[in-house]
Amino acid sequence: MHSTQNFPQEKLPVLLDQYRDFVHANLFPIDLEIVTGQFRTRLPQLESLRSKAKSLGLFAPHLSEKDGGLGLNLVQFAQVSEILGQSPIGHYVFNCQAPDIGNMELLHLFGSEHQKKTWLKPLQGGKIRSCFAMTEPDHAGSNPVNLSTSAVREGDSYRINGHKWFTTSADGAAFAVVMAVTNPDAGSPHQRASMLIVPLDTPGFRHIRNIPIMGDAGEDYLSHAEIRFEDCRVPAENLIGVEGQGFSLAQERLGPGRIHHCMRWIGICERVFEMMCVRAVSRQLDIGKPLAEKQTIQNWIAESRAEIKASRLMVMDTAVKMEQFGAKAVREDISTIKFFVADVMMKVIDRAVQVHGALGITDDTLLSFWYRHERGARIYDGPDEVHKSALARSILKKYRSNG
Amino acid sequence: MHSTQNFPQEKLPVLLDQYRDFVHANLFPIDLEIVTGQFRTRLPQLESLRSKAKSLGLFAPHLSEKDGGLGLNLVQFAQVSEILGQSPIGHYVFNCQAPDIGNMELLHLFGSEHQKKTWLKPLQGGKIRSCFAMTEPDHAGSNPVNLSTSAVREGDSYRINGHKWFTTSADGAAFAVVMAVTNPDAGSPHQRASMLIVPLDTPGFRHIRNIPIMGDAGEDYLSHAEIRFEDCRVPAENLIGVEGQGFSLAQERLGPGRIHHCMRWIGICERVFEMMCVRAVSRQLDIGKPLAEKQTIQNWIAESRAEIKASRLMVMDTAVKMEQFGAKAVREDISTIKFFVADVMMKVIDRAVQVHGALGITDDTLLSFWYRHERGARIYDGPDEVHKSALARSILKKYRSNG
Amino acid sequence: MHSTQNFPQEKLPVLLDQYRDFVHANLFPIDLEIVTGQFRTRLPQLESLRSKAKSLGLFAPHLSEKDGGLGLNLVQFAQVSEILGQSPIGHYVFNCQAPDIGNMELLHLFGSEHQKKTWLKPLQGGKIRSCFAMTEPDHAGSNPVNLSTSAVREGDSYRINGHKWFTTSADGAAFAVVMAVTNPDAGSPHQRASMLIVPLDTPGFRHIRNIPIMGDAGEDYLSHAEIRFEDCRVPAENLIGVEGQGFSLAQERLGPGRIHHCMRWIGICERVFEMMCVRAVSRQLDIGKPLAEKQTIQNWIAESRAEIKASRLMVMDTAVKMEQFGAKAVREDISTIKFFVADVMMKVIDRAVQVHGALGITDDTLLSFWYRHERGARIYDGPDEVHKSALARSILKKYRSNG
Amino acid sequence: MHSTQNFPQEKLPVLLDQYRDFVHANLFPIDLEIVTGQFRTRLPQLESLRSKAKSLGLFAPHLSEKDGGLGLNLVQFAQVSEILGQSPIGHYVFNCQAPDIGNMELLHLFGSEHQKKTWLKPLQGGKIRSCFAMTEPDHAGSNPVNLSTSAVREGDSYRINGHKWFTTSADGAAFAVVMAVTNPDAGSPHQRASMLIVPLDTPGFRHIRNIPIMGDAGEDYLSHAEIRFEDCRVPAENLIGVEGQGFSLAQERLGPGRIHHCMRWIGICERVFEMMCVRAVSRQLDIGKPLAEKQTIQNWIAESRAEIKASRLMVMDTAVKMEQFGAKAVREDISTIKFFVADVMMKVIDRAVQVHGALGITDDTLLSFWYRHERGARIYDGPDEVHKSALARSILKKYRSNG
Repeated sequence: MHSTQNFPQEKLPVLLDQYRDFVHANLFPIDLEIVTGQFRTRLPQLESLRSKAKSLGLFAPHLSEKDGGLGLNLVQFAQVSEILGQSPIGHYVFNCQAPDIGNMELLHLFGSEHQKKTWLKPLQGGKIRSCFAMTEPDHAGSNPVNLSTSAVREGDSYRINGHKWFTTSADGAAFAVVMAVTNPDAGSPHQRASMLIVPLDTPGFRHIRNIPIMGDAGEDYLSHAEIRFEDCRVPAENLIGVEGQGFSLAQERLGPGRIHHCMRWIGICERVFEMMCVRAVSRQLDIGKPLAEKQTIQNWIAESRAEIKASRLMVMDTAVKMEQFGAKAVREDISTIKFFVADVMMKVIDRAVQVHGALGITDDTLLSFWYRHERGARIYDGPDEVHKSALARSILKKYRSNG
Repeated sequence: MHSTQNFPQEKLPVLLDQYRDFVHANLFPIDLEIVTGQFRTRLPQLESLRSKAKSLGLFAPHLSEKDGGLGLNLVQFAQVSEILGQSPIGHYVFNCQAPDIGNMELLHLFGSEHQKKTWLKPLQGGKIRSCFAMTEPDHAGSNPVNLSTSAVREGDSYRINGHKWFTTSADGAAFAVVMAVTNPDAGSPHQRASMLIVPLDTPGFRHIRNIPIMGDAGEDYLSHAEIRFEDCRVPAENLIGVEGQGFSLAQERLGPGRIHHCMRWIGICERVFEMMCVRAVSRQLDIGKPLAEKQTIQNWIAESRAEIKASRLMVMDTAVKMEQFGAKAVREDISTIKFFVADVMMKVIDRAVQVHGALGITDDTLLSFWYRHERGARIYDGPDEVHKSALARSILKKYRSNG
Repeated sequence: MHSTQNFPQEKLPVLLDQYRDFVHANLFPIDLEIVTGQFRTRLPQLESLRSKAKSLGLFAPHLSEKDGGLGLNLVQFAQVSEILGQSPIGHYVFNCQAPDIGNMELLHLFGSEHQKKTWLKPLQGGKIRSCFAMTEPDHAGSNPVNLSTSAVREGDSYRINGHKWFTTSADGAAFAVVMAVTNPDAGSPHQRASMLIVPLDTPGFRHIRNIPIMGDAGEDYLSHAEIRFEDCRVPAENLIGVEGQGFSLAQERLGPGRIHHCMRWIGICERVFEMMCVRAVSRQLDIGKPLAEKQTIQNWIAESRAEIKASRLMVMDTAVKMEQFGAKAVREDISTIKFFVADVMMKVIDRAVQVHGALGITDDTLLSFWYRHERGARIYDGPDEVHKSALARSILKKYRSNG
Repeated sequence: MHSTQNFPQEKLPVLLDQYRDFVHANLFPIDLEIVTGQFRTRLPQLESLRSKAKSLGLFAPHLSEKDGGLGLNLVQFAQVSEILGQSPIGHYVFNCQAPDIGNMELLHLFGSEHQKKTWLKPLQGGKIRSCFAMTEPDHAGSNPVNLSTSAVREGDSYRINGHKWFTTSADGAAFAVVMAVTNPDAGSPHQRASMLIVPLDTPGFRHIRNIPIMGDAGEDYLSHAEIRFEDCRVPAENLIGVEGQGFSLAQERLGPGRIHHCMRWIGICERVFEMMCVRAVSRQLDIGKPLAEKQTIQNWIAESRAEIKASRLMVMDTAVKMEQFGAKAVREDISTIKFFVADVMMKVIDRAVQVHGALGITDDTLLSFWYRHERGARIYDGPDEVHKSALARSILKKYRSNG
């Protein structure tokens, strides 16, 4: 997704079809089983899917050709992301899953040569996984400058102490990018923290648990960990960028990340919408009386279609502007899509559950998985309320200065 | 908006600015007074604004240059329409107001040479006004094939009898396009009706009243009439197209009309949004405590912004497709924007009323006018419920045939 | 509604039937015409209805028998109020309309003997009308301690200066109860204002206009005035209670008033609900296909029924508690019903409009009147947002003190 | 809850306090752990709580004193049910949990002496558990007359074949009450089915699985099974009532059951509301800036409080009427509370999740359990849509017959 990338636009439709076919043929038949089973036992199966993706030239679409990818720009990748999002293992199979894709972006832009060679390279190749440790249980995530985790410089190393949670995919990861306070006395609270690479076999790193979330603790990639750093020492060269740059790097990292999330959510919406329609035409209330004839169901289908369409147009519009004018120019748009699309997704999923009746609350379809595990979408990366206030304040500022 | 029109795209931004400036400078200062006063007394003032528009080369943007317009295509005109929609007299001043614009379109496409010369020409020049008589009080408008008005061919003329209402702008119009049953025995109910031009000074035409709507009967252009045809005779040459073609012509007429309406509604949203923001920063709850600091107000501003943005993107997307592929190809999209945008508009207006407090329910701002007179948007041209069902059934058909 | 009143409970069902019959027989046939016409021309007709009410022993149900009423307590009156609320002229005909009922309550409780004789007596008898001047255009009504109107004591009189609006029914009223600052230096802002009786023929009182509200300026009882006091002098004996007591009296006055309003709104809901059902079974979409068969319509009817039922139970529960424990004990309940019932009413009205289609937006039914003139219900006597915050803060206080 | 029961009303407040104390002291500290752990391992702990309940005279409040209970009537029990509902193990500990309470009611009213002795007695004593097998995967539960399970009379026994699911608590139950078609040729589809007692150790009964629901398959009492009957034979004396009576018995069984459910849901609402408030005052966004100060949070708290209050008043009103006039008289009310309260509960839970942020989606609080496992409330015992249509049709019937 680097702005210099330039996959030929005229080839995109064919490429998108290839992703669509792959996902339908290879992922839809197995994804429910994988996300409701034990993820770790499926790693070989997933590995062979990755090989297949590589052999078809579809692996890592977000990376430059030089780095083993396809060189898609943000707008192009967004369209792939929607397709992959239709399966909960879609991004994983193509090695463009969060949080790794964010870490790749981060290290590509700001990593040292050493960091790139040691960590970025194997990450891009899908040899290792990574995680991103920012959120702390004792502080509201919506105010990220409140951090207790510290990284104290001692000679050639940093000594890290702190307590994090919702460290997605920490279980089985090779390293974490850790946000920690290095400069507690900096004037601005936004200049106190830094990002550090912590290999997870470092003494002092403790994986406390995979947090049980909405009924699943999950494991490996499909988990969110609670972790501790207890006098955990890493070499000073593991600092990303310079001291105090933590928040500005995080902003850079989150920008395109929200586009990815939103397009993934739209993918979920489309899969769920499809399920809702199939159910509506096939479920008979009485002989020859499918659910589809009920006006309430029709309302839900019409409203869902409208809302999904609105979502996609807004996210794509934001992606185009971000590609053109940079992340800063689209801050309002990013806030807008964050709360709008998350809300649409949860409504569409909820309607689909209702259309499926009892089946909808079982784990026999993907609806339950998404109903449970996407509820967080309205919370992580800034809850709805924070984005709405931020957007409104940004808009109102223009009126105030005129007033 | 004829598909052959071709206003140079690169000149559009400047043109839009000109419309914006005109509307701000000339219409905003007087529109509230005009729509809350007696419209007819303002005709000279409006006429002089039309002259000004003509002298600036902004008049009738939807017409070809040959017909005295600017030659904008549908997509370009949609953008002008949003700007004009910010004022309730915007479209009128530029002679692209409903129902006249629809009648111009209709006569341009399907009128005889005689009809064009006699009716279309002065309509395009803003010399006369017209109306469109379709809805009947005794039949649900959502099922237009139920018509009681008849036009019986008798020699060289048609004898029309019937009762219509919601004949917008009939008061003061020169002629009506009347939908009447000419072929009651046609196989398909969609082939029974025809469109006829009825000059309003024809004997047998009765203007019963301007229907009081939401507190205003209005007058002239700003009114909706109840009318009767009582053995009202018009020459056979007043038939538009051929007998039985009424519904197919109506479909053609309504297609772009819904784009125009939706863009006008978005214009309303933008003006109302502006009012809401200005109020939020200026109204003090306590010294130094503007409404804008209240999170509920912020929520409304953020949600409104998101919904307006979604609306515009969807309407423009539909306009682009309609321009490219024709009205038939975008039937689902048209239904989608019809119910989505009308709903957004009513929500945005309602929030703005609430933000204005007591002032919001007075006629001292435009909010009351729109709160009252745009409530119909969820009803006319097909109520929400009809469009939702139509959209859903169209979507579900694809699943059923696969099933 | 005075707590000492004691209409025999066992006679209530028969009494309620009497009110129901009166309203159906005498008010339903004429109320639409009255509220959409010129109110003043109807005063004789209304006067004869009042005579009829008196002759049937139904007049002024809220007053004690001694004062010419029926001696209903708050809970009993609430039930009458719902019935009267079904017609927009119901309360007026029985002389228990706002703002007069509040002023009667106020003067009954706090008026001097002289005030009672001069103002209360004829008010109770329906000989004169009154108004209540509190809201000012320059201050948010939701923060009533912000008042600019002053009443300066000068010898035996007060000199009043100020600007008020939304002075309901000032047009044609004999006197106003005016809230004005008498003690600008009082420690608490709640002790700065007083209530004064101002006869409206006092020099210095100016009726500027009946504010046009949602399309109607209205007149007489059915209007809301903008007024000014310009060195308007009243004798000191016109002070109600003692100086600085303004806000505590206003609280007393508003308490039962909100019960009355809520029950009136429920009356509106019931009439509108009835209209919606009648329309649903009678309007045919196609031969033999009434609207009633549409599931969306059914949803609206079911949801409306549930919400109206919830509203009534909550208001009656609040009335019972207020009767038993006083207004202070039910502050949370009052906030609850204020925002809950207003919201329900607007939703029910909006659904009924939609069910009526084009007819619903005309002034040919009462729907338009209520759609327009009850929109204020979510604003006056404290907007939704203020009541929600007040309720929440009151609830949260209990948790905080425990914490 | 038998209508003859007569627990002295004046002792109720003290009794309710006892339940409240018990639940706070004994259940709140352990319930999260129990419902997120392995239920079966907790049976001894639960058994000792039951003993405690018995020793305090609080066990089985719904049963007559003769049967070892307290003799509460429906209205009294409803109030206990709300208190017990605050803990997901509340009803279980007091042996008044669904589906057993429904089966006790059923056997009490319609069981033979033999059935009472063999099944009802130990069920009342908490010695065994039971289940109710009605829903089938191949038929929409909302149309219960569509049943495929058959019970063919063969001499002195019935041979049962069929496939059921959502047979709540079948795992570990001693017997099932099974709804099966015994009279396929009966004129009315409502007279084709019967209820039969099937001991779960009968050959031909197969427990296929505990259906994984929203992330948990659960076990024992806390599970919903998929089961099959394969030539499963039970003696003819296991028929409850007479052949063909299945649906009328089911109606009887469901009536009070919906009151119980609704009161349990209100209990959940209250616990969740409490959690939301505690969180709001304790979670700091910034030092000294608790969430409670955010207006959005205040809105949710106010709206939740209003909606919970409305729910309780409606359910209690329905219980009182049912007690007085029987289940048939309150069919509309039952439909009303079914969809209204389920909706309120899901909204309140959703808001509480959002207020808790990341914590809200973990299994570290009860919110996740209820968010997931009460989603079914809008589906089981008739989905929202069915109850809304039923209510509306019942209301509209009155208008139609008048029309």
